[in-house]
Amino acid sequence: MRTQVGIIGAGPAGLLLSHLLHLEGVDSVVLESRSREYVERRVRAGVCEQPTVELLREVGLADRLDREGLPHHGFSLRFDREDHRIALTDLTGGSITVYGQQEIVKDLIAARLAAGGDIRFGVTGAAVHDVETDRPRIAFDGGELECDVVAGCDGFHGTSRGTVPAGVLKTFDHVYPFAWLGLLAKAEPSHEELIYTNHERGFALHSMRSPEVTRLYLQVDPGERIEDWSDNRIWDELHHRLATDDGFELREGPVIEKSITPMRGFVAEPMRHGRLFLAGDAAHIVPPTGAKGMNLAVADVLVLSRALSALLHKGRTDLVESYSDTCLRRVWRAEHFSNHMTTMLHRASDVDDYQHRLQLSQLRYTATSTAAATSLAENYVGLPF
Amino acid sequence: MRTQVGIIGAGPAGLLLSHLLHLEGVDSVVLESRSREYVERRVRAGVCEQPTVELLREVGLADRLDREGLPHHGFSLRFDREDHRIALTDLTGGSITVYGQQEIVKDLIAARLAAGGDIRFGVTGAAVHDVETDRPRIAFDGGELECDVVAGCDGFHGTSRGTVPAGVLKTFDHVYPFAWLGLLAKAEPSHEELIYTNHERGFALHSMRSPEVTRLYLQVDPGERIEDWSDNRIWDELHHRLATDDGFELREGPVIEKSITPMRGFVAEPMRHGRLFLAGDAAHIVPPTGAKGMNLAVADVLVLSRALSALLHKGRTDLVESYSDTCLRRVWRAEHFSNHMTTMLHRASDVDDYQHRLQLSQLRYTATSTAAATSLAENYVGLPF
Repeated sequence: MRTQVGIIGAGPAGLLLSHLLHLEGVDSVVLESRSREYVERRVRAGVCEQPTVELLREVGLADRLDREGLPHHGFSLRFDREDHRIALTDLTGGSITVYGQQEIVKDLIAARLAAGGDIRFGVTGAAVHDVETDRPRIAFDGGELECDVVAGCDGFHGTSRGTVPAGVLKTFDHVYPFAWLGLLAKAEPSHEELIYTNHERGFALHSMRSPEVTRLYLQVDPGERIEDWSDNRIWDELHHRLATDDGFELREGPVIEKSITPMRGFVAEPMRHGRLFLAGDAAHIVPPTGAKGMNLAVADVLVLSRALSALLHKGRTDLVESYSDTCLRRVWRAEHFSNHMTTMLHRASDVDDYQHRLQLSQLRYTATSTAAATSLAENYVGLPF
Repeated sequence: MRTQVGIIGAGPAGLLLSHLLHLEGVDSVVLESRSREYVERRVRAGVCEQPTVELLREVGLADRLDREGLPHHGFSLRFDREDHRIALTDLTGGSITVYGQQEIVKDLIAARLAAGGDIRFGVTGAAVHDVETDRPRIAFDGGELECDVVAGCDGFHGTSRGTVPAGVLKTFDHVYPFAWLGLLAKAEPSHEELIYTNHERGFALHSMRSPEVTRLYLQVDPGERIEDWSDNRIWDELHHRLATDDGFELREGPVIEKSITPMRGFVAEPMRHGRLFLAGDAAHIVPPTGAKGMNLAVADVLVLSRALSALLHKGRTDLVESYSDTCLRRVWRAEHFSNHMTTMLHRASDVDDYQHRLQLSQLRYTATSTAAATSLAENYVGLPF
């Protein structure tokens, strides 16, 4: 079996890359270890940046997003039991759209299959070979894919990154001293916008997936086990942290899913080795507070699709040479912004009271200074691709 | 001996308070343990915020400042061997003025003495008594001052704060893992504006006191001793950290003074106990990176002079009741801003490579985003009193 671009992973990065390459007239095959049902139900990110939405529209992938996605023109910072709205659209002209990652994955799979795209689900044992030559291969259980280029879009735990020889990649890793307990509940959202809350007992986030499904998060210790968090305990803690002086009411509903996710920042540099290109979570992880993870993957594969088109159609190597540096500028911006949001909103047990006071001053300043609010908003809405 | 307001300390806080009270028709006596010569030669801060300059003008203290002070409309962030200018005036309409703290002290002493003000130098052993009554006293070696109110303007190491009974004050203390080696040199400044430098070997700052005197700083470990830093070693390190790709030339000159100062953040809350009011460094310390220390002292005593005038002329207690909260909002803003500048510009040995990359991304973003640069500039120029 042979194609131009062998793509490992059918998440947003791999599928969108395949779509973009198709539009550029470049053939690809996507190999995915999981089933279609699994990837279409995997709950992950839910916030699309303005540049992400614009790109999806440009490439014909936004019909359902425009119908079902929830455009948001602001969000709230909640502290001292009070809301302070960051008016994203007033401040930047842009907005974000709440639309689950798995919905984008469904739309991408449908679009690829409608266009005759080749996605192989349930392909296990994928291993990358010969990326230092012009003919790399992806061996897998029961077959092999020869290609011109391999795109490693297989996530943080995927195998692509690990096939780069020792010493080539420099990795940057930062583990945060907290985790997020995420709850998906069949309940009408309690507020029309997201609420990022700094409470003395820790961060809490009110979000949503649809007009019927609420997404809620609680900062917990990374050592916590989900078994110790009954639904009742979670709701109690959410009520407590989200309480306001003007009587905010959190709507409850049946719990669809709950889990605890540790928070880390991770970057591997460069994002390319020979003819292997890493994109999305395979190359970098951000803590979820800035809602940047999926959006970074989208930015990566946009740059990569143009670079691969130039390489494979015209033999131009400049864009593949600059791929890593171009992406890493945005990656580090997102790492910094995510770190900024995380440290502003979480309560770390290893910091002193002095730093808690700094946090409150920073929150008050961000809520009252147009410059500071605009800086937050332009990062949140997404700096231009 | 008796007066309305007994002021301990003839630094900028105590002297300006005495001046402002005089304008409000309130009598005061300033007690200072050092000699006039000592306080007039004590080298400290050198950057006056816009609101500080405006206040000094309004109260007739800016004649020499307007003649000799150096107005600055921007400063540089230097990193990756390149300058990125923060255009303070273009971004905010405001500016800062470089004018040494000891010059302000000279101007204040001259103004107070010209107006018949009572400043006692060389008064040792000052101790505050009976601040929980309406007749507090300041006992000192060889005498006693009875007053209506005591203002503790005697700095971080002064005695005022210590006379507050245990448990009344909550203190917030944060020691930074670096110190500043400061150098005063008889040399024409090498650049017309300040240069805040993030270099992999640590922070460096190019500043000035006058067209003939350069002020330079190096980040060093807090355990370093000034005896281990010969002038040659200091100049070598400055040349190294301040080097740019376009050939920045650092002008050398005879060293007038050099010393190492640890960096800390400290706040005592509340800033009042009974009829004792703390102002300036007696109540709070900031790391010097944001150039906020003296400016905070000025803001404190402006609030205090109005509150004491209302109390002593009209028996109004609301402004003295709110004195601490009013000041602390600005204090914590300055603590946060100083922390922000400090962490963005210094290299801490206890952070990982990940955090160094965040720093560089933050610097690049601050230098290229109008919103981020404006946020930095409005804090640096000084938020309105």
